[in-house]
Amino acid sequence: WVMMERDGLKRLERVYKFKDFVTALDFTNKVGAAAEEAGHHPAILTEWGSVGVAWWTHKINGLHRNDFIMAAKTDEIYQEFV
Amino acid sequence: WVMMERDGLKRLERVYKFKDFVTALDFTNKVGAAAEEAGHHPAILTEWGSVGVAWWTHKINGLHRNDFIMAAKTDEIYQEFV
Repeated sequence: WVMMERDGLKRLERVYKFKDFVTALDFTNKVGAAAEEAGHHPAILTEWGSVGVAWWTHKINGLHRNDFIMAAKTDEIYQEFV
Repeated sequence: WVMMERDGLKRLERVYKFKDFVTALDFTNKVGAAAEEAGHHPAILTEWGSVGVAWWTHKINGLHRNDFIMAAKTDEIYQEFV
């Protein structure tokens, strides 16, 4: 994960690699399900062979403990794919 | 749709609005299924309440007739959501 500042907003960002589009979209759905369950939603960029995930907290305009927890959870989900 | 140039690459881009995250992700999946069927894949940015879609053709480093066809197809899919 890298901490990126976009429009003055700190975000945790990571790009994951996959063998094709369908597998990337599968990962997107699993991250989406975890987000929905947690009531905390990232930005997810799905492309052929890669998914970029960004976590941040709108309410505080930056990073909250929850974002780090969800970043770790996203890594955990990726373990199913490697 | 707007034609955006990113890293010297022309792309067709559009942002669609949704009522929540789950509906946005549902649209992402439908666009993904159409992409897979066509063998032509966009970048899809899924967030709470919005999905950004970008079409371009890697092979020619720009826009091909297919990109315009897929952009129209994406609009067609969105009709189910409005």
